[in-house]
Amino acid sequence: MTQSFFPPQRTLMGPGPSDVSPRVLASLARPTIGHLDPLFVSLMDEIKGLLQYAFQTSNELTLPISAPGSAGMEACFVNLLSCGDTAIVCQNGVFGGRMRENVERCGATAVMVEDDWGAPVDPHKVAEALKNHPEASVLAFVHAETSTGTRSDAETLCKLAREHGVLVIMDTVTSLGGIELKVDAWGADAVYSGSQKCLSCVPGISPVTFSPRAVERIQARAHKVQSWFLDMQLVMGYWGGDSKRAYHHTAPVNALYALHETLVILQEEGLDNAISRHQRNHKALVAGLEAMGLSMAVEEAWRLPQLNSVCIPDGVDDARVRGRLLRDFDLEIGAGLGALAGKTWRIGLMGHASRQRNVILCLNALETALKAEGYALDSGAAVEAASDYYQSLTGS
Amino acid sequence: MTQSFFPPQRTLMGPGPSDVSPRVLASLARPTIGHLDPLFVSLMDEIKGLLQYAFQTSNELTLPISAPGSAGMEACFVNLLSCGDTAIVCQNGVFGGRMRENVERCGATAVMVEDDWGAPVDPHKVAEALKNHPEASVLAFVHAETSTGTRSDAETLCKLAREHGVLVIMDTVTSLGGIELKVDAWGADAVYSGSQKCLSCVPGISPVTFSPRAVERIQARAHKVQSWFLDMQLVMGYWGGDSKRAYHHTAPVNALYALHETLVILQEEGLDNAISRHQRNHKALVAGLEAMGLSMAVEEAWRLPQLNSVCIPDGVDDARVRGRLLRDFDLEIGAGLGALAGKTWRIGLMGHASRQRNVILCLNALETALKAEGYALDSGAAVEAASDYYQSLTGS
Repeated sequence: MTQSFFPPQRTLMGPGPSDVSPRVLASLARPTIGHLDPLFVSLMDEIKGLLQYAFQTSNELTLPISAPGSAGMEACFVNLLSCGDTAIVCQNGVFGGRMRENVERCGATAVMVEDDWGAPVDPHKVAEALKNHPEASVLAFVHAETSTGTRSDAETLCKLAREHGVLVIMDTVTSLGGIELKVDAWGADAVYSGSQKCLSCVPGISPVTFSPRAVERIQARAHKVQSWFLDMQLVMGYWGGDSKRAYHHTAPVNALYALHETLVILQEEGLDNAISRHQRNHKALVAGLEAMGLSMAVEEAWRLPQLNSVCIPDGVDDARVRGRLLRDFDLEIGAGLGALAGKTWRIGLMGHASRQRNVILCLNALETALKAEGYALDSGAAVEAASDYYQSLTGS
Repeated sequence: MTQSFFPPQRTLMGPGPSDVSPRVLASLARPTIGHLDPLFVSLMDEIKGLLQYAFQTSNELTLPISAPGSAGMEACFVNLLSCGDTAIVCQNGVFGGRMRENVERCGATAVMVEDDWGAPVDPHKVAEALKNHPEASVLAFVHAETSTGTRSDAETLCKLAREHGVLVIMDTVTSLGGIELKVDAWGADAVYSGSQKCLSCVPGISPVTFSPRAVERIQARAHKVQSWFLDMQLVMGYWGGDSKRAYHHTAPVNALYALHETLVILQEEGLDNAISRHQRNHKALVAGLEAMGLSMAVEEAWRLPQLNSVCIPDGVDDARVRGRLLRDFDLEIGAGLGALAGKTWRIGLMGHASRQRNVILCLNALETALKAEGYALDSGAAVEAASDYYQSLTGS
């Protein structure tokens, strides 16, 4: 007979899922109510308002897709593209490649703008591609590349798209709630995210928002969206404004309790405070890692505070170190992905996990694991450097 | 400021979600671990084994899709169909119509076999369609129509498909765990279900299973599956057997804790016992409803014990009665859907909700609400009839 499962208490400092607040876990376990219950419909309205705040948008079509971020990505592409369309897709990591897959599976053409993994998307190349491909109707890029820990200049990329009259699909899976993200001010059109990164909710839900321009394009489609489940015209019927809620699918009720609680916590802290907190803990972590003699994989200007890519030193076994952190410290950090597998670790400081105690835990644990690998370092220097940084903030 | 949400404790006797066991709710709130954590990978293996038991299959490709049943449906269609294919689709309610949408959005042709809403799929018509459409590669039907509460003869329909060499896509959203369902013995090829019906898990997850024949067809596809998120060749890489787990998407970790606990409970009770329990409570409910003078909407032989369609008597206001049950008794029952809107109620006795106390609660509440509508009935007769039925079982 299979027994009930009791997971250990990990500290999640990988690329997501991140640590979930006890408040959010408690909300998950509240009694399930029906997905058409009037009280649930009010909850949906509140979630919409809270997501508008998180995305900094007044887009009417703002809601959580009932599936992970990958489905949120697919929702943006299948709704905005039709067979025969062209999209300019920027790739500087794993997720740009996934965007290409999405474009091609719509029967559309992806014009790729490639940058090195760990570098930001180059706006000059994007401007060039927009000029050379007047047939393109969409520009797609990743704001915060989860595979490398790199931010791109979303504001400039959106501006370029506007100048050429193309719609912007923007991946904010790892940026939402962690760094500045202004959907309306920047003019992004179809934006998707995930629940399990800087929002620190449980994984499985993908917040999305569509601009009025995007909605207009969806409504003007000549052919039905190829996905029934992700057809925003149908989803709108259930999530939409004043009209009667039409049953589309059964919403993941308890997961939405958790998303709601997560967003209430974000609202309580304030978006700006959450962003400063991510920045502060990032700086402390970097101070510690550098004191250990490690080097960051991404140039300072483009580093994500919520996802820190560190180069694995020569002679250190990637998997053994991560295994030791998990076994001895119940601490999860992330491996490199794709081209960076075996070359970097990804240390997340996302949402509820972006805390001073986690920075110190991680530096201590990593020091122990690196020593076991025969890596030479000054004992305690990392924690001291991080602590000094925190101290300098209190002092000021 | 938006406040935390505290739902009331409803009794869920609609078409799903159904009441969730406190054990399952408690499992949801356990600490999140990473989706590539070795302990999570073991949990995935256990879920696979438990789902094989629930589906009565040894299919290797048996797993939960990280999204609601509608996405499970779409996973079956997009993987088995390509542009230009033909599928025979049986429709005797809402969900056959949704199947048609799925077929057409794959660029395939749906040959419809129509039956009355509330009647089962007619195998003679299906045999005729299979004979007349030798180009068809798939037969799709709903085992238990959630919109009407009707069972169809899945065994016979699968047999017909086998005889004509077409693959079977079967919707078991409402049947899994509630009535007999034998995927291997019947020879169904792509079968999807939902978490929130007779499994009584929280909504948002769709168990699916694919036969070796279906896997072969997927592997022989000339074109990529149109959905990246639902491409089983990619999903297999994460859920697949011995090979190294390749990251595809971030699994909904806590929802899978809940699914696991749900399936452990099913295994503890035993599938046959669960099925008998659904049957027993159904008979008691029907005895009570008939004693109240109400008539069932579906012929006895094809009634679903887990979802009881009752005709709304003349002069009784559908929405007012349901509103009263919710307000005064915290009891949710379902409205009719599609062609049956306003004509029937759907009373679910699914999974954890299929209990004697719920049968009695519902009969009492409905009696009160009907009296308030001026409907003439013998006070207490319904509960007495149901209690007599239960008594007759204990006596025997």
